[in-house]
Amino acid sequence: MQKLKVAILGATGAVGQRFVQLLEGHPWFEIHELVASTRSAGRTYGEATNWVLDGEPPREIAEMTVKELGEPLESPLVFSALPSDTAREIEIHLAEAGHVVCSNASANRMVHDVPLLIPEVNADHVRLIDQQRQQRGWQSGAVVTNSNCTSMPVTMALAPLLQFEPTHLQLVSMQAISGAGYPGVASLDILDNVIPYIGGEEEKLAIEPRKMLGILADDLSSVHLMPATISTSCNRVPVLDAHLVSMAVRFATNPTMADIEAAWEAFVAPNVVQGLPSAPPQPVIYTRAADRPQPRRDRMAGNGMSTVVGRLRDCAALDGVQFLALAHNTIRGAAGCSILNAELLAATGYIHAFDTALIHRV
Amino acid sequence: MQKLKVAILGATGAVGQRFVQLLEGHPWFEIHELVASTRSAGRTYGEATNWVLDGEPPREIAEMTVKELGEPLESPLVFSALPSDTAREIEIHLAEAGHVVCSNASANRMVHDVPLLIPEVNADHVRLIDQQRQQRGWQSGAVVTNSNCTSMPVTMALAPLLQFEPTHLQLVSMQAISGAGYPGVASLDILDNVIPYIGGEEEKLAIEPRKMLGILADDLSSVHLMPATISTSCNRVPVLDAHLVSMAVRFATNPTMADIEAAWEAFVAPNVVQGLPSAPPQPVIYTRAADRPQPRRDRMAGNGMSTVVGRLRDCAALDGVQFLALAHNTIRGAAGCSILNAELLAATGYIHAFDTALIHRV
Amino acid sequence: MQKLKVAILGATGAVGQRFVQLLEGHPWFEIHELVASTRSAGRTYGEATNWVLDGEPPREIAEMTVKELGEPLESPLVFSALPSDTAREIEIHLAEAGHVVCSNASANRMVHDVPLLIPEVNADHVRLIDQQRQQRGWQSGAVVTNSNCTSMPVTMALAPLLQFEPTHLQLVSMQAISGAGYPGVASLDILDNVIPYIGGEEEKLAIEPRKMLGILADDLSSVHLMPATISTSCNRVPVLDAHLVSMAVRFATNPTMADIEAAWEAFVAPNVVQGLPSAPPQPVIYTRAADRPQPRRDRMAGNGMSTVVGRLRDCAALDGVQFLALAHNTIRGAAGCSILNAELLAATGYIHAFDTALIHRV
Amino acid sequence: MQKLKVAILGATGAVGQRFVQLLEGHPWFEIHELVASTRSAGRTYGEATNWVLDGEPPREIAEMTVKELGEPLESPLVFSALPSDTAREIEIHLAEAGHVVCSNASANRMVHDVPLLIPEVNADHVRLIDQQRQQRGWQSGAVVTNSNCTSMPVTMALAPLLQFEPTHLQLVSMQAISGAGYPGVASLDILDNVIPYIGGEEEKLAIEPRKMLGILADDLSSVHLMPATISTSCNRVPVLDAHLVSMAVRFATNPTMADIEAAWEAFVAPNVVQGLPSAPPQPVIYTRAADRPQPRRDRMAGNGMSTVVGRLRDCAALDGVQFLALAHNTIRGAAGCSILNAELLAATGYIHAFDTALIHRV
Repeated sequence: MQKLKVAILGATGAVGQRFVQLLEGHPWFEIHELVASTRSAGRTYGEATNWVLDGEPPREIAEMTVKELGEPLESPLVFSALPSDTAREIEIHLAEAGHVVCSNASANRMVHDVPLLIPEVNADHVRLIDQQRQQRGWQSGAVVTNSNCTSMPVTMALAPLLQFEPTHLQLVSMQAISGAGYPGVASLDILDNVIPYIGGEEEKLAIEPRKMLGILADDLSSVHLMPATISTSCNRVPVLDAHLVSMAVRFATNPTMADIEAAWEAFVAPNVVQGLPSAPPQPVIYTRAADRPQPRRDRMAGNGMSTVVGRLRDCAALDGVQFLALAHNTIRGAAGCSILNAELLAATGYIHAFDTALIHRV
Repeated sequence: MQKLKVAILGATGAVGQRFVQLLEGHPWFEIHELVASTRSAGRTYGEATNWVLDGEPPREIAEMTVKELGEPLESPLVFSALPSDTAREIEIHLAEAGHVVCSNASANRMVHDVPLLIPEVNADHVRLIDQQRQQRGWQSGAVVTNSNCTSMPVTMALAPLLQFEPTHLQLVSMQAISGAGYPGVASLDILDNVIPYIGGEEEKLAIEPRKMLGILADDLSSVHLMPATISTSCNRVPVLDAHLVSMAVRFATNPTMADIEAAWEAFVAPNVVQGLPSAPPQPVIYTRAADRPQPRRDRMAGNGMSTVVGRLRDCAALDGVQFLALAHNTIRGAAGCSILNAELLAATGYIHAFDTALIHRV
Repeated sequence: MQKLKVAILGATGAVGQRFVQLLEGHPWFEIHELVASTRSAGRTYGEATNWVLDGEPPREIAEMTVKELGEPLESPLVFSALPSDTAREIEIHLAEAGHVVCSNASANRMVHDVPLLIPEVNADHVRLIDQQRQQRGWQSGAVVTNSNCTSMPVTMALAPLLQFEPTHLQLVSMQAISGAGYPGVASLDILDNVIPYIGGEEEKLAIEPRKMLGILADDLSSVHLMPATISTSCNRVPVLDAHLVSMAVRFATNPTMADIEAAWEAFVAPNVVQGLPSAPPQPVIYTRAADRPQPRRDRMAGNGMSTVVGRLRDCAALDGVQFLALAHNTIRGAAGCSILNAELLAATGYIHAFDTALIHRV
Repeated sequence: MQKLKVAILGATGAVGQRFVQLLEGHPWFEIHELVASTRSAGRTYGEATNWVLDGEPPREIAEMTVKELGEPLESPLVFSALPSDTAREIEIHLAEAGHVVCSNASANRMVHDVPLLIPEVNADHVRLIDQQRQQRGWQSGAVVTNSNCTSMPVTMALAPLLQFEPTHLQLVSMQAISGAGYPGVASLDILDNVIPYIGGEEEKLAIEPRKMLGILADDLSSVHLMPATISTSCNRVPVLDAHLVSMAVRFATNPTMADIEAAWEAFVAPNVVQGLPSAPPQPVIYTRAADRPQPRRDRMAGNGMSTVVGRLRDCAALDGVQFLALAHNTIRGAAGCSILNAELLAATGYIHAFDTALIHRV
């Protein structure tokens, strides 16, 4: 059996580095190509990269030569950690050329036939790929996206509660600096400070959860957005990793607190997802501690792939409930989710080059 | 002319230190007595105090001997920086003994005949003192409180908007560590972290603004609470000073954005307040900057006595508006407000020992 | 085969929690008793402990009942995370009662017949136990200590250089807040600040490395201190974990830079130590990066058990060299080192109850 | 009387902003021209500047139009906050054109006829200007520099001790992020971290104090460097402002601790300096507190213009003493020192256009 070869676009950036880190020792995938801009191309990954994560890049990866963005790629699976502007067309071109692209970029997330995917939440949305391929005339290529890093914990926390029909959400985020990439937030801006504004973030947070929690149209052509009203306020706080969101939610069905707690505790991923290598044992962890979730102490729950919710209580102002949700923004909210998405595509047959014998090997 | 002698209860604590700092060179008041617990009593203030503010305590104050809580006091005006439990009875006893007590403690804030005062907002509530004195048989004594440090910017930001009849508020705070006093928040808890819980804070924030924005009863016996529904979520962030509050507000009258901006920009303190030594030139400063207010950069606005509001925008979820409000929690939200309250009492004749010639001296 | 039962003294404190965390899944040892003060005794560990590390305590440990300090213990091996004052006599009493005590407390470190142990550096010092047992009439008991958390990286960095005869050291530390335990350093003291003083630390740092790098007397009765002059300056910085030390060293033999680099790169632990479960693959990691070691990025090297050194360069003022050394203060500099010490004692036969078959099992 | 018109080069950068802030309300100087790169030129200062200091730029300054670097200037006095590469030639050209340039850039600091000036320390070095003008054929122009921000507290702390003949210095700095300008240090690099390297800093710190503490040659042509050996180790710490330096010093004359303390306490600026508007009452403040100086609590001593020294004690390794020195890096160590230098030049007649009547006005 041969692991599937993968390429990473934008491999030298902060999210690209997370892909490298999380793919080390992956049972199904192996890094075959590292792709970056002209400035880095032709150098070894170790030379081209200012590694901002802990420790050092894996030795064998550090010695690989970086390819230039635009060169033809060999890998059937491509992870994109590109900036949104750059991503838009390149991802489409790669899909046309037959690659399955799992993207962390925002560019194509809201395109009608592109799945915006959290496997535990909307695994069935992968079927948009059938439509995507048919309409666009692609054989083996596809573009799949994962959500904005703040939309992630919000969506995961709501997924078990969909049955209660959320109608109004007031979301206030406290987001980590790593969400801005590198160099990203200047230390002079954030030490002993909060910045109550993150460009473009509030708009994404107001729409992306509605797509992920929406219903696949009967003709598989698109997703009907969840009919909820979402207002958002996004803040940058002096925290390295993990986004914490204070959520106030009104439901059409007025569930009790006990109903909500039970729904969170009963929540499991679909069977096909549970066995995926990067799937956390518990996608949603509900804590009854008085002062949790906390970014530093809870971000590595489920190896950084779980969402932790807590402090469930009444919200009179919205005639609903309040609680907090937290997820690791560069693992679950970025590279880790892309990898889990790719695993789902592999397991469900959307990556033709993937040797399914790998699934049962472990 | 002789400045009014004042005592500070809890003088060695973090808020007590702010009183000492802010009273240095005050044109009307002079520190005459420093009062603390048995542990500190009998020592000089310099020895007894672990000064946690910048620099050093003023030299002449450092050499004063600390009195023990419970000793009779000579000062007609007493500032209380006591913990709430200790404050409850001591403040009442001191008022009985003829002292005017301006308290930062929460114990007596919601007592029906005790003013909960922000001079720019509800200066007329001082008239509760008439009732207080009559009913309790006090001649010159009184108890007046200032609000919780988070209720402060919320109330100040709403005061100009009362005309639009706020009915529902969803408040999410990001609060500085100095709000917990000293030693307060352990650094191991807050570095690279957010703690989404502050004991007792959410309850205070849900009720205190309603009293301060309420209407004095015709018989002056109490305050009718503002009839609004307030939900609250309080978070501690790694910031030294200043509380930032993300506010979502629904109004009964559906004001436009322009109405709200105009109301903030037109807001001024009552005449009697404008001339007080600690009154800021602008109680509410509305900023149109995209990313303000920020705790570090805006907390010293108006010498730490102004509230800065910004990022006014629509809030579909609550069918109202969203914005942020910020104030310095240990200046405007604690010692500074107590001092301004005392100045108002002095200027309006409630401190009998005060020589009103001081008012016109400057 | 049966794992060795161990007790943890001071189990609810910050270092005690690290013992719990690091012993989870240990191949030789299993936690059998958790011991703390009266306040915690009788409660479950989960209830009694304010867990300050990431995540949660292991479930089965959380359900164990905490014993009171002073109760007789069943475990042959005892880890002590007690405060120094409490530790002094209790550790001796437990050794008298037959327990092998591996202590992180400073109380007994400089006692002449107590090994102050870093297995990679001075494994032969374990032979002080023979003397300890003989002179004190102990059969199976013993007291072994690990060093102060700042002495650790200093000693480890110097061990490979002993051959060059260090004679003068000027040490300036930048230490993490976790070194002060919990609640430890108040956030109001350390945010946006450095505290250039840590009580008792400079004295320990000036003497402990000399014992660890000293030579065991021929009669095994004590250790001859390394004859070097050490000056120290200790600073607390706003870093969670890992102590960084700027070291300037003069040697009697004037080694070249290349000599020093070669010595670091050639350094390995004694054979008996290399196979221990907690021994890192490389005790000393020399980095040529221009800006390393860094606390956050290098503290987990070797699972937090390696010391990282870097920035080797000339030091004209001391007529020697300068470099930086870093180690994780609560892993390698505290609980992790105690555990490694215990592993060495087990492997060398000093813990009679230990089933040596475990060593070869893997 | 007319205030002297001044220009600020690099006015939109972080140090340029400090110039603007510190010159507000200056009794002798008024900002007449703001100069920056092409990107900013032609826009108002408010539009062109991302103000990173607290609050807002002064309103009247914000409305001034920014000039382009290279345009002829009208102001007799020019403050340079340029990057070093840009500064080198431009500063010389401006001096040729008749301007007195007080520069914070490093480019010309070590040029033999350019004063590297701290008025309290080496006011007599201004006489290099006579040589500078004569040799270069300048009439009214001149270039004067202030030191690197870390060299500042080191030099000031040593100035009173020159009488004891310092011969060897081992310096370890803990430097604030503002020293790197804006955007400067990425928050991902410095939160929960120390970076033990600052490009070019160790070299400057090893030489600049020797020039400032050196002796003016009899022929006024240059400065004889102080004959001391200085080794340096520079670290970036998560502190906003103020550089703290751990200093170990050997003296030729073996002064006692009491000698050193007395020297610090007796130190005063020369008479001509004492009356300058920006001169602090005490250039060197010696504190006996156990845990000071601290960056946050001591940086504003003397309005940010004093150097605070403390923790004097023995240093066996260097056969001398150890202590800590601290100064505000962007006030005393940058813009504030340039302004004080300019005041000295004005007061000593080196700025021909300056109306000396201003000196006596106050």
